[in-house]
Amino acid sequence: MDISTSVKFLIEQALAEDIGPGDLTTEALIDPELQGQATIVAKQDFLVAGLEIAGQVFHTLNPTIEFKALLKDGGRAAPGEVLAEVYGPVADLLRGERVALNFLQHLSGIATHTHKFVQAVAGLPVKILDTRKTTPGLRLLEKYAVRMGGGHNHRFGLYDAILIKDNHLAAVPSLPEAIRRARIYAPHGIKIEVEVSSIPQLKEALAAGAEAILLDNMDVLTMREAVTLAKGKAVLEASGGVNLKNVREIAETGVDMISIGALTHSAPACDISLRLSILSPHTPGK
Amino acid sequence: MDISTSVKFLIEQALAEDIGPGDLTTEALIDPELQGQATIVAKQDFLVAGLEIAGQVFHTLNPTIEFKALLKDGGRAAPGEVLAEVYGPVADLLRGERVALNFLQHLSGIATHTHKFVQAVAGLPVKILDTRKTTPGLRLLEKYAVRMGGGHNHRFGLYDAILIKDNHLAAVPSLPEAIRRARIYAPHGIKIEVEVSSIPQLKEALAAGAEAILLDNMDVLTMREAVTLAKGKAVLEASGGVNLKNVREIAETGVDMISIGALTHSAPACDISLRLSILSPHTPGK
Amino acid sequence: MDISTSVKFLIEQALAEDIGPGDLTTEALIDPELQGQATIVAKQDFLVAGLEIAGQVFHTLNPTIEFKALLKDGGRAAPGEVLAEVYGPVADLLRGERVALNFLQHLSGIATHTHKFVQAVAGLPVKILDTRKTTPGLRLLEKYAVRMGGGHNHRFGLYDAILIKDNHLAAVPSLPEAIRRARIYAPHGIKIEVEVSSIPQLKEALAAGAEAILLDNMDVLTMREAVTLAKGKAVLEASGGVNLKNVREIAETGVDMISIGALTHSAPACDISLRLSILSPHTPGK
Amino acid sequence: MDISTSVKFLIEQALAEDIGPGDLTTEALIDPELQGQATIVAKQDFLVAGLEIAGQVFHTLNPTIEFKALLKDGGRAAPGEVLAEVYGPVADLLRGERVALNFLQHLSGIATHTHKFVQAVAGLPVKILDTRKTTPGLRLLEKYAVRMGGGHNHRFGLYDAILIKDNHLAAVPSLPEAIRRARIYAPHGIKIEVEVSSIPQLKEALAAGAEAILLDNMDVLTMREAVTLAKGKAVLEASGGVNLKNVREIAETGVDMISIGALTHSAPACDISLRLSILSPHTPGK
Amino acid sequence: MDISTSVKFLIEQALAEDIGPGDLTTEALIDPELQGQATIVAKQDFLVAGLEIAGQVFHTLNPTIEFKALLKDGGRAAPGEVLAEVYGPVADLLRGERVALNFLQHLSGIATHTHKFVQAVAGLPVKILDTRKTTPGLRLLEKYAVRMGGGHNHRFGLYDAILIKDNHLAAVPSLPEAIRRARIYAPHGIKIEVEVSSIPQLKEALAAGAEAILLDNMDVLTMREAVTLAKGKAVLEASGGVNLKNVREIAETGVDMISIGALTHSAPACDISLRLSILSPHTPGK
Amino acid sequence: MDISTSVKFLIEQALAEDIGPGDLTTEALIDPELQGQATIVAKQDFLVAGLEIAGQVFHTLNPTIEFKALLKDGGRAAPGEVLAEVYGPVADLLRGERVALNFLQHLSGIATHTHKFVQAVAGLPVKILDTRKTTPGLRLLEKYAVRMGGGHNHRFGLYDAILIKDNHLAAVPSLPEAIRRARIYAPHGIKIEVEVSSIPQLKEALAAGAEAILLDNMDVLTMREAVTLAKGKAVLEASGGVNLKNVREIAETGVDMISIGALTHSAPACDISLRLSILSPHTPGK
Repeated sequence: MDISTSVKFLIEQALAEDIGPGDLTTEALIDPELQGQATIVAKQDFLVAGLEIAGQVFHTLNPTIEFKALLKDGGRAAPGEVLAEVYGPVADLLRGERVALNFLQHLSGIATHTHKFVQAVAGLPVKILDTRKTTPGLRLLEKYAVRMGGGHNHRFGLYDAILIKDNHLAAVPSLPEAIRRARIYAPHGIKIEVEVSSIPQLKEALAAGAEAILLDNMDVLTMREAVTLAKGKAVLEASGGVNLKNVREIAETGVDMISIGALTHSAPACDISLRLSILSPHTPGK
Repeated sequence: MDISTSVKFLIEQALAEDIGPGDLTTEALIDPELQGQATIVAKQDFLVAGLEIAGQVFHTLNPTIEFKALLKDGGRAAPGEVLAEVYGPVADLLRGERVALNFLQHLSGIATHTHKFVQAVAGLPVKILDTRKTTPGLRLLEKYAVRMGGGHNHRFGLYDAILIKDNHLAAVPSLPEAIRRARIYAPHGIKIEVEVSSIPQLKEALAAGAEAILLDNMDVLTMREAVTLAKGKAVLEASGGVNLKNVREIAETGVDMISIGALTHSAPACDISLRLSILSPHTPGK
Repeated sequence: MDISTSVKFLIEQALAEDIGPGDLTTEALIDPELQGQATIVAKQDFLVAGLEIAGQVFHTLNPTIEFKALLKDGGRAAPGEVLAEVYGPVADLLRGERVALNFLQHLSGIATHTHKFVQAVAGLPVKILDTRKTTPGLRLLEKYAVRMGGGHNHRFGLYDAILIKDNHLAAVPSLPEAIRRARIYAPHGIKIEVEVSSIPQLKEALAAGAEAILLDNMDVLTMREAVTLAKGKAVLEASGGVNLKNVREIAETGVDMISIGALTHSAPACDISLRLSILSPHTPGK
Repeated sequence: MDISTSVKFLIEQALAEDIGPGDLTTEALIDPELQGQATIVAKQDFLVAGLEIAGQVFHTLNPTIEFKALLKDGGRAAPGEVLAEVYGPVADLLRGERVALNFLQHLSGIATHTHKFVQAVAGLPVKILDTRKTTPGLRLLEKYAVRMGGGHNHRFGLYDAILIKDNHLAAVPSLPEAIRRARIYAPHGIKIEVEVSSIPQLKEALAAGAEAILLDNMDVLTMREAVTLAKGKAVLEASGGVNLKNVREIAETGVDMISIGALTHSAPACDISLRLSILSPHTPGK
Repeated sequence: MDISTSVKFLIEQALAEDIGPGDLTTEALIDPELQGQATIVAKQDFLVAGLEIAGQVFHTLNPTIEFKALLKDGGRAAPGEVLAEVYGPVADLLRGERVALNFLQHLSGIATHTHKFVQAVAGLPVKILDTRKTTPGLRLLEKYAVRMGGGHNHRFGLYDAILIKDNHLAAVPSLPEAIRRARIYAPHGIKIEVEVSSIPQLKEALAAGAEAILLDNMDVLTMREAVTLAKGKAVLEASGGVNLKNVREIAETGVDMISIGALTHSAPACDISLRLSILSPHTPGK
Repeated sequence: MDISTSVKFLIEQALAEDIGPGDLTTEALIDPELQGQATIVAKQDFLVAGLEIAGQVFHTLNPTIEFKALLKDGGRAAPGEVLAEVYGPVADLLRGERVALNFLQHLSGIATHTHKFVQAVAGLPVKILDTRKTTPGLRLLEKYAVRMGGGHNHRFGLYDAILIKDNHLAAVPSLPEAIRRARIYAPHGIKIEVEVSSIPQLKEALAAGAEAILLDNMDVLTMREAVTLAKGKAVLEASGGVNLKNVREIAETGVDMISIGALTHSAPACDISLRLSILSPHTPGK
């Protein structure tokens, strides 16, 4: 989905959280007229995501700041490579530095982590999907970063898909009844997916007309059987316990999608820094 | 700082992000009168943080939900252990499940990661500190989780401390002039800290009266020299490139504090799940 | 979708809009201790929607007010029938009266208007759908009222379905290319619908694998041909120029759904009033 | 009152309601660089209101969009007439289309409906007034549309006038006492109006010094008597059961104002559409 | 107007401003279980306003706090007198202390200052009015405090009255034309007042039918003439340069109202403090 | 701290408070095309603060308004002196006038009042500090005005300093224990200050290692003794009962700082007005 609409408020919040009533150090030390250049520099090899947002952080602080991206989201950065140059009042470059980097290091971390899974299944007709296991408040951005890493998005929330899980089934008389209720209620345009953890459950879901089926924590042998059974009847999503070691084996079962919570909840941040240089001469006293 | 005041809005936002205009699956399937019990269960060994917030998530959705914590934040959970029991309408337990777990898995991840560093320096008179490298919007909660893991907090933002870094020094005539300006400007109650990366810089900072000094990416030998020089004059904080392998060696130099960005930006999430059971009988049709 | 989550803010806004800095008449005249009973009375025959919201209006003003609904949303009210009794401070009953009635008369109007269309196609296997032609800010409530009137909901916004319309097709090379792009982009769980206005376009959409097809302003003969062609391949939605006179004829073509903007944008309000009586004795002077 | 100050937030809300986390279809299909022209076209004869707001909708989405109104609010549109041309990125024209039209069709509906009443009393010295029976959240806009249709505004809310109605009188010792309390409390600048439903009540109100009197659901004969009695003492407002058939007869009684809830709560929407054409060449793949 | 509706947000803001991310001292020192009693004590003689708000401050922090007012707004406090007792967790009593006192000392200051003017004109048929010269964000509260001090309110803002001042007259062809335009535009229920600074202007305003007239900075002799001329035609408001020394002389001219900016913009705060005592035993270590 | 970040919301609130749903007088009378010039004029001698904010008020209303400041915050204005010229649509100059002046008169009042205290201690090595006794919602601005008057800021809230007061000491076992707890809890960068009211308490605080000590309501003799005892060990702040008559005597005791609540809570507003002239010709009818 479109990051431009939803990210504005989040940036304001993040700046408020960091700057609060004021950046004491900058206000104490820096001449407000002083102009400078900041370069955002990669300190490791990674896949970039969030560069546009880093730019918006600076623009939110001061619309006159010029942000010149040298790479694009989805591109690869080498150690030492300059991702962007930022021109404007030194005081505002300092105020925005940490928030801009915090977005960038987090989203690039997710893109980079996702890309490892995508590469691990290269050549196979399978999609790597994220989940709803995201950081509170950051879901749209994190799902954007997944796309930048070559992954695809599962539903965005509880509002844009029907996914009947074991906890739902505990509360309805039967799986077919659950699917029947879902079909009546679902707004026009929404698909119905069911989570199963065994072959009998899978058969029941197929018989009841599920359009997509989530195979929950199945072993690879069972998954293969599931693929044979579901072929042409419903799309299959593998989920649970997926890691970089087993993802290819899972993909080779023939499932259509593999969803992985770790893409968004356990991707380590990338190492990125900001270097400042002064464009106008020092002023002896403020 | 106090989590109770700031977390309310974040919870509302996270629920809005997940539920949006409505939880389609729950609305389609679940009888709104149906009562249930949910248990929050540890799937691995970890240090708990965020249990109170998980409770607030459910209370925000429905004030009649009863949340019974069996552990406390800062306590240790074993695999299979029940962290909390939640009683209320099944529909609301399902609506709140993911958001509650997302807070809990993220904050417990940070507490657990922090605790590894704290254990690695056990017995030494050093504090493990976090940084401002936090997830946008979650700083207060992440810093709370650091405390639950046995760590201490560095400043909360740009507003509650003076920290003069290399990028500031690029924009002022000299380090002593920077400290002079800071002293005039700082509100009563705020300390002045300076970042240095060499022994000459350290000497200059001490001479100018810095109250705290951040040793940026120094090797262990230099740090030891810094400790000797600064003893009794200023407190010392080591920062940069700290990991679980080198943290004890750094601590043994005698620095007062070690600050580590990875506590908050690269802690993997903990594996926690929610199991639902029904307390009132099934209703045949909704 | 669930009205309880989204309506709170709208109620606060509506109260603020009406009361602003204060209800001058009530403050001037009414003893704040005075208790009263209000009855909400139907002045015409209609289908009720919004009664629960009317109750929330009063609770928002004063949580001690007791609101006793005598009918339910979706039920039928006869002229003179009491919909609800409200007990509490007279001053707050007066403050909330207009806002509560404004919600109730508007939503009941939509439910009542929808129900006329539903009755007109009684016995036929067709769903009456709303559209996105709703009053700004009130979409979730208006779609709720449509359901109370026996109608079904089309998508809730641009975010929960793919609907490729003529204006989109003006901007892409071809309809098959549009469907191809949609299939790549759509989050897992979202269906793809295409708007067509002729039989050749319909054939193209079917060939490209559209899952649903909107027949835009087609005459009844063409619609019948469309039904024959699409049978078993895609669901069909009739739209454009539908009114109470032609809706049954359209339904008899065999389309699966008929969507009607007038359900939400042109339903006349129902006539409903509030009568107040005093429960505690007059106070001679305030 | 001034629409420019209050409408900004409402537009943002309406866009958020429609676009939510993103416009899936547009994001999937449309090249973000593609430029286009949209024309807003009347599909029926009506009085325009809301054109400026339609422009603000597009500007809110993207400040670079150029909105060229060809008509003005308060002007008459013929079927097929172009109301405005809009230039900008095709993606944003598509995103804003429905919200812009929803405002325009609703407000034009109110202006058009109001104008019918104004025309029905043409030549008589009477004002057609709206009421507080407005759509929650839209009052200022709806009252603006009434003015565009040639009507006048009654009070904007409970805060800017004193209107003593039957429900107030149920809670005070007497009508004269009510007027006395109102006179003490009313901020300097606010008039006092009383609702009456009989000639004796009218006499009591006049004797107590009411500055304006609302004749509630009176028949035409009684209204004429009221006009004779009140002449030169208080202004008279007729209200209740007014429609296009009886409005002229009511006006001819000599009342100063006629207030009509249907102006805002039951005006059918106008039929208006948006046509898109592409200004820059197709791009073969996105 | 009613303070209860508008003050909630202001209290939250004031608490946020003071507590920010957390009350460091309280969190560091105070056992969260510790219960205490606070007494709010007058340190000087004054007229109370804001006691209810002080209570709301504590309730906003913690709904379980019990606030027992011993005086009422509008009552007189003697030095040493206890205004209220507050019971609850010591930590929350400490968190709310300053914000509660800041409201109370400011509003009591205004009530006390207003009361001095009211006393100065005791026995004369004149109202003491406030103005729009209020502290940004606090207008409703400050106007409430004026009423508690025995004063009356002028208009609440630009929205609830027409007041044609010299700066308006600079922009219209003539005073009669201004009044004519105002009469057409004013919503039903709003009076028209004109500011004049000379007798000829006054005559012009009376001739044009102004309902109220503001005498701007007139000397007492001219005011007397104005009173003679306007008697029975329009109400007169004296304004400009009013102080405790000249207010009675002005009142004796026979004007109906005297408006005074200093009531709200220059009233010194009252001296009020909070004393804490512990109700549950000390805990040796936290 | 930086006023630019926090003041935006406050300005919007103050404008909303004054304009509400619309400026009736301006809308009724003034041609929206009419251009004008406003001059902001000092009516007394004072120290300016808030001129930049006055400009922002007008910019918030209408970004095309040109605001030309002729003085700077912190500068001195003489009676009759023009502080600023404002160019733009007359309607918006009228809409913004009162809010701009309300900020300016209040903040200049604080700067002017502060400056009197600063002048009273001229030549002595002491800082004049504000307190947290500020107007709710205006703290950052009021503390800014204190700086413009030559004063310094105490802490901004409960979040950026530790200040242990008598009410805290009532709730902990001992003063040394309080300091010990504070030292463990305080984020890195925050100083610890203790309030004492006697010499024995002062000795205890010094012994426990307090970094700063507030002398609460001490007489001058005791203060002198305190200065002798604390020299070189902790900084001393005098507080309580300070006025323009005794401030120099207090300063001469040798304390480092004197904090004064009256700077912000009891400074009378300055007299400032706005004069309008028209730049484009009158239009005969609107």
